[in-house]
Amino acid sequence: MQNIVIIGAVAAGLKAASKARRCDPEARITVIEKGDLISYGACGMPYYIAGDVQNIEDLMKTPVGILRNPNYFKNIKDITVLTQTLATAIDRQAKTVNIKNLTSGTEEIIPYDKLVIATGASAIKPQLPGVDLANIYQLWHPSDAKAIREGLEEKRFKNAVIIGSGLVGMEMADALSKWDISVTVLIRKNQVFRKFLDPEMAGIVSKYVQNSKISLLMSENVVRFTGNTAVEAIETDKRILPADLVILAIGARPNIELAKAAGLVIGPTGAIAVDEEMRTSDPAIYAGGDCVENVNLISGQKVFAPMGSTANKHGRIIGENLCGGHVKFNGILNTVVVKIHNLTVGKTGLTEQDAKQLGYEYITAMVAGHDKPHYMPGAKPITVKLIAHATSGKILGLQAVGEGEVAKRVDIAATALTLGGTIDDLFNIDLSYSPPYNSPIDNVAVAANAVMNKLAGKLKGISSLQAKEKLPSEQTVFLDVRTPDECKQIRLAGCKNIQYIPLGQLRSRLSELNKKDEIVAFCKISLRGYEAEGILEGAGFENVKVMEGGILSWPFACEKE
Amino acid sequence: MQNIVIIGAVAAGLKAASKARRCDPEARITVIEKGDLISYGACGMPYYIAGDVQNIEDLMKTPVGILRNPNYFKNIKDITVLTQTLATAIDRQAKTVNIKNLTSGTEEIIPYDKLVIATGASAIKPQLPGVDLANIYQLWHPSDAKAIREGLEEKRFKNAVIIGSGLVGMEMADALSKWDISVTVLIRKNQVFRKFLDPEMAGIVSKYVQNSKISLLMSENVVRFTGNTAVEAIETDKRILPADLVILAIGARPNIELAKAAGLVIGPTGAIAVDEEMRTSDPAIYAGGDCVENVNLISGQKVFAPMGSTANKHGRIIGENLCGGHVKFNGILNTVVVKIHNLTVGKTGLTEQDAKQLGYEYITAMVAGHDKPHYMPGAKPITVKLIAHATSGKILGLQAVGEGEVAKRVDIAATALTLGGTIDDLFNIDLSYSPPYNSPIDNVAVAANAVMNKLAGKLKGISSLQAKEKLPSEQTVFLDVRTPDECKQIRLAGCKNIQYIPLGQLRSRLSELNKKDEIVAFCKISLRGYEAEGILEGAGFENVKVMEGGILSWPFACEKE
Repeated sequence: MQNIVIIGAVAAGLKAASKARRCDPEARITVIEKGDLISYGACGMPYYIAGDVQNIEDLMKTPVGILRNPNYFKNIKDITVLTQTLATAIDRQAKTVNIKNLTSGTEEIIPYDKLVIATGASAIKPQLPGVDLANIYQLWHPSDAKAIREGLEEKRFKNAVIIGSGLVGMEMADALSKWDISVTVLIRKNQVFRKFLDPEMAGIVSKYVQNSKISLLMSENVVRFTGNTAVEAIETDKRILPADLVILAIGARPNIELAKAAGLVIGPTGAIAVDEEMRTSDPAIYAGGDCVENVNLISGQKVFAPMGSTANKHGRIIGENLCGGHVKFNGILNTVVVKIHNLTVGKTGLTEQDAKQLGYEYITAMVAGHDKPHYMPGAKPITVKLIAHATSGKILGLQAVGEGEVAKRVDIAATALTLGGTIDDLFNIDLSYSPPYNSPIDNVAVAANAVMNKLAGKLKGISSLQAKEKLPSEQTVFLDVRTPDECKQIRLAGCKNIQYIPLGQLRSRLSELNKKDEIVAFCKISLRGYEAEGILEGAGFENVKVMEGGILSWPFACEKE
Repeated sequence: MQNIVIIGAVAAGLKAASKARRCDPEARITVIEKGDLISYGACGMPYYIAGDVQNIEDLMKTPVGILRNPNYFKNIKDITVLTQTLATAIDRQAKTVNIKNLTSGTEEIIPYDKLVIATGASAIKPQLPGVDLANIYQLWHPSDAKAIREGLEEKRFKNAVIIGSGLVGMEMADALSKWDISVTVLIRKNQVFRKFLDPEMAGIVSKYVQNSKISLLMSENVVRFTGNTAVEAIETDKRILPADLVILAIGARPNIELAKAAGLVIGPTGAIAVDEEMRTSDPAIYAGGDCVENVNLISGQKVFAPMGSTANKHGRIIGENLCGGHVKFNGILNTVVVKIHNLTVGKTGLTEQDAKQLGYEYITAMVAGHDKPHYMPGAKPITVKLIAHATSGKILGLQAVGEGEVAKRVDIAATALTLGGTIDDLFNIDLSYSPPYNSPIDNVAVAANAVMNKLAGKLKGISSLQAKEKLPSEQTVFLDVRTPDECKQIRLAGCKNIQYIPLGQLRSRLSELNKKDEIVAFCKISLRGYEAEGILEGAGFENVKVMEGGILSWPFACEKE
């Protein structure tokens, strides 16, 4: 009968325990947890704070409402969970763990045959003056969520400031904006979601967010937090911001102290190094979840990317391998999806920035369009950016943003990326089609088609960022081929040289344009822009480009009626 | 300058024309269309009839509201579309097409260098007495849709009967049920969606549909339609049904007459045979869309599966190849998705029935669960059935049904199928995760996990259909491990031998069960049923099975509080 000890009882730890029990009905399984709560859906906390989820306990219940507490694990899975118990040291020679009951203070040494480290990660706390004032939170434990929600319900907050615009930061901005308070996000760099969106895609998000109740302050650094006992204001390098609720969301770091002290190898990312079977440098010790590093399947690089979905996969694999299995975990795609108001933002694989940095020869296309036929009620636009290898055609990554269905497109790409798919594959996949769900040529296929057209020299694209640079130039003609009605409603702002010729009139009005000029054609989504390119090139124009994504995906200000 | 003639101006034909124009700005492109409308979104007609789409013209407009008529194609793409013009014969020697203007009666012979046949398919009309009475429709042209909608708006119909329960039949049933009339679907066989759902999945659909306003009459054949000038009733082999609106939806057949008369090879399915480059047996003639046969990517078999999404892919490929390209179309997965009320039904690849018929060694798993964490507002159940190759682990097909998000799961599977993915791949894909969209272990990964557990002998499943057979048996113990509250609300009906032991009490109440008995464990979704199997097997029980999908996916009647 083997003795399995697992340190950490949130996602990876309890999943490993459950799987091990299924594989080995005889094993003795003990899970050590320093907190008082276990198996909580940490990712659900923003939705509890927003008020979408009524009780924090809902995050710790099974779908039929049974609380996943130590009793539950004992009765159903015969797993012993010791809460409020800290693992203080691992003796790898003796194969023991020193544990300490945080309530009674009792210390004990427990033996193991196999050990699992699932100690998770912690939010990074910036070492700034005043950071320990009350009402400055890191959303890392249900107790934080409860305190924030309580304060919101009691109307104790007026001005919330979130530091950081990653996933947690933006989810919290969205959650807090559901309450009648001012919400500001302070961002050190000049874009949101810097880690997983290219600037022109991030620009679409910022534009959307700023039209909502959330203010974004970019390229701005916190200097100190001020207040008596509770925070009252934030001093930045640009201004003083009133703030009675602060969320620190500048990132996480893996909890590796125990592993490090035990002499286990820490990887280049600063997280615990594990092999494909989730084994640490000690063959009797596995590790998984937010405390370990992963491999990015596309780049092959080690990455630190804590994610609940990955932690659950780790747990399942560790559980199998604890019982003699040799199941492998190949890696991740750094896939993300996040909802802000009605906007969905998703990404899988590499961004263009990643591809550039890694030295790939790549090609990209950005396309905008409805997520289903425009005639269907509820059809909403989405913008998709696809990055592919320029010679092999292999997909490298996809980003998608919009009020329409985004997650499906990201997951199609994630599946294709996992299996080494090319842009040709992506175009040809027999995706499910019916008007309530998509157009006969799905948005991902349109993106693949655009990449193919670019590779074949039929589509010459220019990104919104590059086009922005050309706005003040006399030499570049911006050719808007939309209808007069559309042009009345909204127009590119700041063009020095713009021409309005509806596409249907273009063939007969070619003489109004000069064949030698640089022409940037566009429309609402630049499908007509692409038609215009075809017409102009067919007529001998030499330097025509299509502004990818059109006005719909233009991340900068526009002139309006 | 090459001369391209295309017969058919709906999906494949006009897509081929547009793509050819892009590839060859010089070509002369003529499209022949026997009808008066072109480029209409035929798949949108049920939503027009339902009233979701206001005007039938919306189906023929671009997203910015421009009508796609012959003028549009002339002005924008320099493509000549001749409507109300019938192609009456092809002379392959002379490379000419005989055409006839249906308004003027004028006949003409036009030459081609390359010809494209995109003549589509027609609805099958059963040769039954009375089938030509008024108000018996085949939903095949916008004029049918207009007539039906008009009759509905004028309240001329009280009793609608749909013959056939395929995609068109069920979409029409849903559309008509939005109006205040009685809607009945007459089905020759004993299940809906017989072509693409296994019986236990179809049972979930029937149960849902019958709880809505739609009546399903199964295993019933039409004998004749009766009435004076308009239909008044349908005589079946079981009864006389009042019917003042009838929709014939028993399938489609390819329009091959022209191709056949020209001596082109017709394939085993009865549709036009084409090679991978969409070329017919005559190298100067291509064909695509609903009139050609496809290859099923999994089975390698030829299939007739008309679908708007496939027609568009054909069109693009034909367009490239008309201009010297050698682009290949590998095949399809017979993927479908359809919405009935709030239920989504989808399928890709092979069903279990297909796999059995083709002689595969296969394994299946059916799992039920919420489409996102149960604590999130709007979380809805879905049932997923996965079919995999038993030795290689390759995915063969997936079916999904439910009020939750289904299309995404089908498309993930379609992508994995296209690229030869296995169940291990499906479990490990780094799908996008966030509580508004899914659970950390997505439903498709849960299904993959269940197949892996079955392969490893850890999960012994029994389908709802097999379990149904055992209900009257004394020898089989149905073990319901739900809570007493859940059992009060709904219970399996007709069990001869049932025991209620909540999962949390199972370890302490093992003595109430006999180790030699056949035990069928289940709960709401059978996740606790699976836990029960583990507990019982750990305690030495020898014949325990889990009822896959649980009560949630039980396609038969239940006892209710």
